[in-house]
Amino acid sequence: MIVVKKFGGTSVGTPERIMNVAKRCIEDYNKGNDVVVVLSAMGDSTDDLIALAKQLNPNPPKRELDMLMSTGEQVSVSLMAMAMASLGVRAVSLNAFQVAMHTTHTYGNARLKRIDSERIRHELEDRKIVLITGFQGVNKYDDVTTLGRGGSDTTAVAIAAALHADTCEIYTDVDGVYTADPRIVPNAKKLEEITYDEMLDLATLGAGVLHNRSVELAKKYGVKLIVRSSLNNSEGTIVKEETKLVERMLISGVAVDRNSDRISVIGVKNEPGVAFKIFDVLAKAGINIDVILQSYGQGDTKDISFTLPSDRVDEAVEILNNSTDRLHFERVDVRHDIAKLSVVGAGMMSNPGVAAKMFEALYNANINISMISTSEIRITVLIDEKDAVRGAQAVHDAFGLED
Amino acid sequence: MIVVKKFGGTSVGTPERIMNVAKRCIEDYNKGNDVVVVLSAMGDSTDDLIALAKQLNPNPPKRELDMLMSTGEQVSVSLMAMAMASLGVRAVSLNAFQVAMHTTHTYGNARLKRIDSERIRHELEDRKIVLITGFQGVNKYDDVTTLGRGGSDTTAVAIAAALHADTCEIYTDVDGVYTADPRIVPNAKKLEEITYDEMLDLATLGAGVLHNRSVELAKKYGVKLIVRSSLNNSEGTIVKEETKLVERMLISGVAVDRNSDRISVIGVKNEPGVAFKIFDVLAKAGINIDVILQSYGQGDTKDISFTLPSDRVDEAVEILNNSTDRLHFERVDVRHDIAKLSVVGAGMMSNPGVAAKMFEALYNANINISMISTSEIRITVLIDEKDAVRGAQAVHDAFGLED
Repeated sequence: MIVVKKFGGTSVGTPERIMNVAKRCIEDYNKGNDVVVVLSAMGDSTDDLIALAKQLNPNPPKRELDMLMSTGEQVSVSLMAMAMASLGVRAVSLNAFQVAMHTTHTYGNARLKRIDSERIRHELEDRKIVLITGFQGVNKYDDVTTLGRGGSDTTAVAIAAALHADTCEIYTDVDGVYTADPRIVPNAKKLEEITYDEMLDLATLGAGVLHNRSVELAKKYGVKLIVRSSLNNSEGTIVKEETKLVERMLISGVAVDRNSDRISVIGVKNEPGVAFKIFDVLAKAGINIDVILQSYGQGDTKDISFTLPSDRVDEAVEILNNSTDRLHFERVDVRHDIAKLSVVGAGMMSNPGVAAKMFEALYNANINISMISTSEIRITVLIDEKDAVRGAQAVHDAFGLED
Repeated sequence: MIVVKKFGGTSVGTPERIMNVAKRCIEDYNKGNDVVVVLSAMGDSTDDLIALAKQLNPNPPKRELDMLMSTGEQVSVSLMAMAMASLGVRAVSLNAFQVAMHTTHTYGNARLKRIDSERIRHELEDRKIVLITGFQGVNKYDDVTTLGRGGSDTTAVAIAAALHADTCEIYTDVDGVYTADPRIVPNAKKLEEITYDEMLDLATLGAGVLHNRSVELAKKYGVKLIVRSSLNNSEGTIVKEETKLVERMLISGVAVDRNSDRISVIGVKNEPGVAFKIFDVLAKAGINIDVILQSYGQGDTKDISFTLPSDRVDEAVEILNNSTDRLHFERVDVRHDIAKLSVVGAGMMSNPGVAAKMFEALYNANINISMISTSEIRITVLIDEKDAVRGAQAVHDAFGLED
């Protein structure tokens, strides 16, 4: 069996933890499996490097920032190889050049294009544990790139796909995927299995266990993911195409996202193409908007509201205000104190009552809904941030997810 | 003009120092020169990485140690590029893969085989300052290697050779090459020029400014070296094939090496081939021995003494003791409290009185000589370590080097 395992920065943050991860991987190796391990940079080392960079240049060139940052994972993999050697197991560390992991040229946010699996296969045939730097790649100029948020997860899934690995285990600080964030909904239950699509919606909506890029990639190549804890040996959650339960649960989870804000563009012309123009200027700046609500429009003007990640709001407002010539609006309003609450589940496709049940639960909890967005397997509502925890609990209870 | 500059770890040890080096390089760039800069890892960062490695494995695999260590120079070059960018100058950092710098496969002590200069030339044509990781290379397996002691100097000289650079400036914490170590001989004088051969003998004999590997390489490819201070703008010392002085100085410098020990192999058989056998077993372990003295031999046995670097003595003694079957000797004696004192100078080839003058100076200072070794441009004597400073001063004075 070929197993790809990914450990994040916290899991390799100290020599002791590196040793623990080494032992855990060797257990699998000793069962006769081919083991490939993808690692992130140690604990805070990336932050330390960024702080050093900022001292020299508050706005460092992205190419050089990637060159700097990529050293972090190289430190992790070489130390891990040493740890494994001290435990009597042969391991070999490989960086992005050595694999090689080819990416697009965009520094700081590159996309994986192609992974050469020859070197990895050769080392596995030689019965070595192969340790690979996560988060990084090489572009067509032979320059180092990094993959942006969730990069190491993406590396692990891509390698699993390239090797046709049997499983790709993503080790985190939680036991698996829950029906809701246990810090918000204390009686949330761990899921045994979940589909890619459900996981995608949960990832996108702020469940925070896996980044959506890695789930998308896993879905595309049919890589079986296992999300599990690096701290204990519990089973974790399997993410795959179809789940085995005959009687599927109506919904698989409740997600809360408090890192979104709402922008309302007030008084735009009530004519076709206005929404397109607004979202076009934002898209050109690489700003993804999310839930959209367009007011019905009374007379000459209407309002368009949408949500977006909090860290892009200032930029979006500036772009809009610089585009008044083209967009013709009265003003821009921003609300920071909002939250998105979602229910996700493949089961809802064939169950029309889900939305009604969710809205009823929120109504009974006296929580106001300001915007609604739906997909085939997801319903998202915008509510006041102060109501987020109560709302999540109410919806979680209404669907009986704690059972 | 193409200029290669090399700065060591101390010169880039803090963000402030990195900024100073950046400014210094930009001065040269602004004169219209093509500037290539080779950097070592920041200050103590290499020691920190080794300490981390030793926590995981007291005897880490050398391949992985090189993988780990090579991150240090990558941090230096990327930070330097950021510093230059903040000063408005385009720079590009390149690691060993990107150059590429091909080496032999020996981890920890690889030799440079070939440098591809295409990428460097391309970036120079684009009017960028090119920043290159010193000390590291890539072997035929695509694995990272390091070059061992003096590695960054060697990188700089090799790149200067590959680019046919006009000069290769080695920046250190001293002003240049002196007639003796100024910490030992206070009235030592800085040399304006010195030949490769003289520098080689000074380097080998512990003057410590340049490693002999880099000088050998410079001599082989005729690279003009300039040894100068990173702390001030003084002229430094030029190292080249022929020096311009018509009336050459008799000797160019006095070198003291206190990092050598003496091993005496007592009571070996007085027959041909004994010395060969001893040095053969040591050579096979990669131990270079230095000054050799073979006693005249009385009766059946004789003694063979030689010097070698202090850090290899324990290993050498162990090897000798494990080879008694083959070597047949009574015992091995070790003396740690010895020093090598040398005078070096191309001028002595045509001046037979140099040795006599040196011995006279030591005799007048009441310093005993236990072994003597000579080459065409060097005379080395072994003396008690306690006499090293007095001896160096006496010889320096006798040749009037302070003038």
